[in-house]
Amino acid sequence: MRTALVDHTGRILRKRKTTTAISEGPDRTSERLIAECRSLIDEARLMGGEIQAIGLGVAGKINRSQGLVVFSPNLPSMRNYPLAGKLEEGVGIPVVIENDANVFGVGEHIAGTARGIENWIGITLGTGVGGCLILRNEIWIGDDLGFVGEIGHTIVQPEGRLCLCGSSGCLEAYASGWALVAGVKEAAASGDLSSGPLYDLWESGKLTAEGVYRCAKENDSEALQLFHRMGWALGLAIANQFTVLGIRHAILGGGVSAGWDCFIHPLKESLARHSSMLSADDMVVLKSTLGDEAALIGAAFLAINRE
Amino acid sequence: MRTALVDHTGRILRKRKTTTAISEGPDRTSERLIAECRSLIDEARLMGGEIQAIGLGVAGKINRSQGLVVFSPNLPSMRNYPLAGKLEEGVGIPVVIENDANVFGVGEHIAGTARGIENWIGITLGTGVGGCLILRNEIWIGDDLGFVGEIGHTIVQPEGRLCLCGSSGCLEAYASGWALVAGVKEAAASGDLSSGPLYDLWESGKLTAEGVYRCAKENDSEALQLFHRMGWALGLAIANQFTVLGIRHAILGGGVSAGWDCFIHPLKESLARHSSMLSADDMVVLKSTLGDEAALIGAAFLAINRE
Repeated sequence: MRTALVDHTGRILRKRKTTTAISEGPDRTSERLIAECRSLIDEARLMGGEIQAIGLGVAGKINRSQGLVVFSPNLPSMRNYPLAGKLEEGVGIPVVIENDANVFGVGEHIAGTARGIENWIGITLGTGVGGCLILRNEIWIGDDLGFVGEIGHTIVQPEGRLCLCGSSGCLEAYASGWALVAGVKEAAASGDLSSGPLYDLWESGKLTAEGVYRCAKENDSEALQLFHRMGWALGLAIANQFTVLGIRHAILGGGVSAGWDCFIHPLKESLARHSSMLSADDMVVLKSTLGDEAALIGAAFLAINRE
Repeated sequence: MRTALVDHTGRILRKRKTTTAISEGPDRTSERLIAECRSLIDEARLMGGEIQAIGLGVAGKINRSQGLVVFSPNLPSMRNYPLAGKLEEGVGIPVVIENDANVFGVGEHIAGTARGIENWIGITLGTGVGGCLILRNEIWIGDDLGFVGEIGHTIVQPEGRLCLCGSSGCLEAYASGWALVAGVKEAAASGDLSSGPLYDLWESGKLTAEGVYRCAKENDSEALQLFHRMGWALGLAIANQFTVLGIRHAILGGGVSAGWDCFIHPLKESLARHSSMLSADDMVVLKSTLGDEAALIGAAFLAINRE
C-alpha cells in the first residue's frame, strides 16, 4: 500500500510504501493503514501543517456512501469491509473512499497527461486491468452500482482465455501482468516455449510480468508475441469504447504500462483496424506521466473536495 | 421517409410515409421532403395550428451546427449535403437535424419505455444497427465528432463477418436486417441450407429479414440459428457497454426488433455470460413500444426545444 502527504496544490510532500499484510486478515491491514496515516499526520504537524482529510483508493467494488470495500481482488478477505470507517475511527479525520482506477483518473485529470481533455477513458495496466471514464471533466459513476469503467472485463475474444472474473476472453486476460505470465505458462505447457532467457525464467519459477518485458526487449519472439497480443486486445477494446462514446482520447497508466514500447505499435494498428468511425490520426492514446503519483494525488483531491 | 405532425405534448396528429427517391439525386430527395412538410404545414393550418419548427432524424454522420448530412449509408449521394438548410429555405421554418438513433432515443426517453430511466443505451435494429446513449437523462454527444452510440460497429467477433463499414466482426454483421439475409446466403453458398421454406425464399430471390423471421417462427433450424447468433452478438455488445458505463438498462427498437421472441432468450443468456460485474437479474433489456413513432416524437421534441 502506498500512502502520501499531499498539499492543497496537489504537490506530494511525503510518499511511503508498505505491504498490506492482507494474509493476516483485514483488521491487520486496516491497523497498518491507520499506523501509516498517523505517522504521516505527525510528519505534517512537524512541518507546521494540519491534515484535513484522507482519500483512499482501493481496487475493486467500492460503496462510496457507506465507506465499504464491497469486494477487492487484491484484498479478498475484505468483503463488505468498512475500511473508511475503521480508518476514520483510528485517526479522527474524515475519510473518502474510491475505486483505485477512479483516483488514478482524477489525478491524471487535475495534474497529469489528461489536463484539458474533457472526455477520455483511462486504463490502468497492473496485475489486473482497471479503468475509469472521465466525462465532461468529471469521474463518471454511471448508476452508482459500485463499478464503472471496467474495460478490463469487456470481451475482446469470445471463448478466449479464461479470466479471473470467470468470463472468457476479457481484455484483462491479454493485457495484464497476470496475462503475460499466463501466456508464458501456456506456451510452456503446449511445448511452444523454445530455450532462451524466457524459458529459463519460467523454469526457475521466478517468472514475472517485468521478466517477460525484459525478454521482449532482448527480442525473445514469444515475449514479443505476448506484448503484441496485449496491444491488439487494448486497441480493439479502446476502439469499441470510442465508437460508442463518440470520444477519441485514452490514457494508459499502471505498472505494466512501462512495457509501452513493446505494445504501443500493435495497439495503434489494432485501434485503426477496429475503428470504423475515426481515422488513425484522430485517435489519441497517451501514457500517464505521473506513474503511481496519479492515484495519490487523485485520492487527496477527492478528500479535499469531499461533499 | 416518414413525416409527422406532432403537437407540444408529443402527440402525433398526422403521420405519412413516402420514398426518398434518393436514386434521383439528393436535390430530388430534398424537394420531396419539402413537399411533404409543406403539405403537413397546410394540414396544421386547417386544424387551426401553426408549425413552430421541424426536427429531422437522418441515419449516419450528422453535423448538427451546420445542418449537414455528412455521410448517410441510406442516402449515399448526400455527402456533406446541407439538408437542414435546404428544408429551412423551402418552408421558411426553423429546422433541427440529428442522427436517427438519437431522435429514437429522445422519443423513447420522453414518451416511451425509457421514461424515468436516467442512464441507458439504445439500439435500433433495422437494415443496419444504430445506437444512442442517454446519460443523465440527456442524449450524450461525446466530443461532438458526428457520431455517437454506434454500438453496431463495436467488434463482437474478431476476424468475423465483413461489415459494410469495412471492419470485420461488428455487431451489425450479426444483428441487422442485412446480416440475417447475408447469413442465409452464406449458408446457401457453403451448402448448409437444406430444403425448406428458407431455401425456397433464397432460391426465389425474394429473401428479406422478415422472411427469415417467418421461417424462424416455423422452426426452420437455419433461421433460428441466425436469430440465435443475433442474440448472442447483442448480449455480448451490451455486456461490454454495461461493464464500462456502469449502467444496466438497454432499450431495443427498429423494425428488426419485431423478431424479439426469436432472439431475446439467446440475448439474455449471452448478456449474463459476458457480464462479470452484474448478475442476470440486475440487467434490464426492454423492447421499444413506440415503434417508428419514437423517432418522430423525438425529432419533434428536439425541434420544439431547440436552442
